[in-house]
Amino acid sequence: MNSDAPPLVDQLRAGDARALARVISTVENRTPGWSELLKALFPHSGHARLLGLTGPPGAGKSTLVDQLARHYRKENRTVGIIAVDPTSPYTGGAILGDRIRMQDHFSDPGIYIRSMATRGSLGGLARTTADVATVLDASGRDLVMIETVGVGQDEVDIVRLADITIVILMPGMGDDVQTIKAGIMEIADIFVINKSDREGAERVEREIRALQSLAERSDNWTPPIVKTVASEGTGIAELAAAIRDYEAYLQKENLVVQHNVQNWQNRLVEMLRDALLDRAREQLGNGAVARYAAEVAEHKRDPYTLVEEIVGRMGKA
Amino acid sequence: MNSDAPPLVDQLRAGDARALARVISTVENRTPGWSELLKALFPHSGHARLLGLTGPPGAGKSTLVDQLARHYRKENRTVGIIAVDPTSPYTGGAILGDRIRMQDHFSDPGIYIRSMATRGSLGGLARTTADVATVLDASGRDLVMIETVGVGQDEVDIVRLADITIVILMPGMGDDVQTIKAGIMEIADIFVINKSDREGAERVEREIRALQSLAERSDNWTPPIVKTVASEGTGIAELAAAIRDYEAYLQKENLVVQHNVQNWQNRLVEMLRDALLDRAREQLGNGAVARYAAEVAEHKRDPYTLVEEIVGRMGKA
Repeated sequence: MNSDAPPLVDQLRAGDARALARVISTVENRTPGWSELLKALFPHSGHARLLGLTGPPGAGKSTLVDQLARHYRKENRTVGIIAVDPTSPYTGGAILGDRIRMQDHFSDPGIYIRSMATRGSLGGLARTTADVATVLDASGRDLVMIETVGVGQDEVDIVRLADITIVILMPGMGDDVQTIKAGIMEIADIFVINKSDREGAERVEREIRALQSLAERSDNWTPPIVKTVASEGTGIAELAAAIRDYEAYLQKENLVVQHNVQNWQNRLVEMLRDALLDRAREQLGNGAVARYAAEVAEHKRDPYTLVEEIVGRMGKA
Repeated sequence: MNSDAPPLVDQLRAGDARALARVISTVENRTPGWSELLKALFPHSGHARLLGLTGPPGAGKSTLVDQLARHYRKENRTVGIIAVDPTSPYTGGAILGDRIRMQDHFSDPGIYIRSMATRGSLGGLARTTADVATVLDASGRDLVMIETVGVGQDEVDIVRLADITIVILMPGMGDDVQTIKAGIMEIADIFVINKSDREGAERVEREIRALQSLAERSDNWTPPIVKTVASEGTGIAELAAAIRDYEAYLQKENLVVQHNVQNWQNRLVEMLRDALLDRAREQLGNGAVARYAAEVAEHKRDPYTLVEEIVGRMGKA
């Protein structure tokens, strides 16, 4: 191990759950030292398989993720879970539920669950989630599952980090949810119809197939549809098998590297954008943006020219 | 009129609908000249009232927005509508539906409807929507309504631009939608329960009241709950009255300017962020980000150090 690395990194790499929790908090809250931690951890990352799971509220994502985690634990694989709830931007989201879930797995150090308090709109939730996934990856977890509620652009951004994206639907969502389904057709590598013992499961399956025939993928993969009843553990082994099949497909077609390069391209742009803004704010000084905002609100300045001027000045100081 | 301004601006200001459409397309697609257009239009903006309307899919937002637009037209006020659908990031969203809506209002130049093709995650949908709202504002519309599907962070960002935010719910969404409701409690200035002739309208109202008692607003406004059946025009006059009441409250408490300054602070940061990234990409040159992404994906470089280096170099060239 690298003796220059912060001691926390060695502790985390040695499997210390408290060190892991501290590193994640530091990274999530951007506490001083966060970027040094990530620099030290990055060389140890790249071994975990990242699963992204998303779907509308009520589809039973948490239960499904729990069952899948249990399944992997029986195969002696270690699991990290990141539960993100961007639909609740101001309040803390499903914190209570996660506490209960964490307690459930408390006796097993092979499962680590972390719920992400949502960032403000300017903080970049997708980016923070990516960094936390890197930490879990570097801590030696075999699988990192990123679970997100809802199906807006945020969820798409977050789930795009994953190697494998699983979209969870359920029967009885009604026609109104057509919009949602259309929006996520393109990102699903695997579909799950959870609560499939309820009436209407076949209808959801038909709808997915119909939408599939319209959507185009850049590869030749046809996302399979797996039916589950997560609360009873039904279909979980089938889901794990579908994940294995897709992994094999990715390997066979040499798509893993291509996928990673694409992911890093998106991530680098996000990181660059945040870092540039931080630097600009530093150069402008405290309260400058608020002062400018007041001038623009009073129509004393046009914001478009103002931003050009600020950018033009940057780095020349 | 300013003779230095692009001729399009004069045409748009004179009420030419085709000029308006061209300017919006230029701004939306960031076609060369877009920022000059916005600079020329900004001094003419600031007079329209911006209404933001959001709610889950199926709540009947489009119908409600249409009815509200009709109501304002009877008062001889001109209306611009921006329909945004960020739940559909890859396909074009509700384009067909908008065509039908536009045809419906075709004979009335006092209503202008524009559907926003969604940007990629890096383009900043909230920012583009804000710019298009500025164009409609500068074109002399009395009211600009921004309508967005769904209730994720994107919608919150978009709707925050508005002077007045209206959240549209409906009966029969079930307990599952509790998450969604919790996420938008904080942004609603007015609640609408649409389709209120359906069973369960009272229950939704009770739920809103219960959540309201938990949420805290920085002002003392208690968002009213208006019941509508938009398809029959029921409750539209009451909604317009609620909007007027909130406008009066904003004026009385001197909150308009404060609100505008806050909005511009958010908008300036977004604009700065995009502009800085554009400049960095220019300086890096074509394909540089893709090359860096490949190096990071192969673990030849750590992305955290890389981004620091790029930011450090910026402006020194």
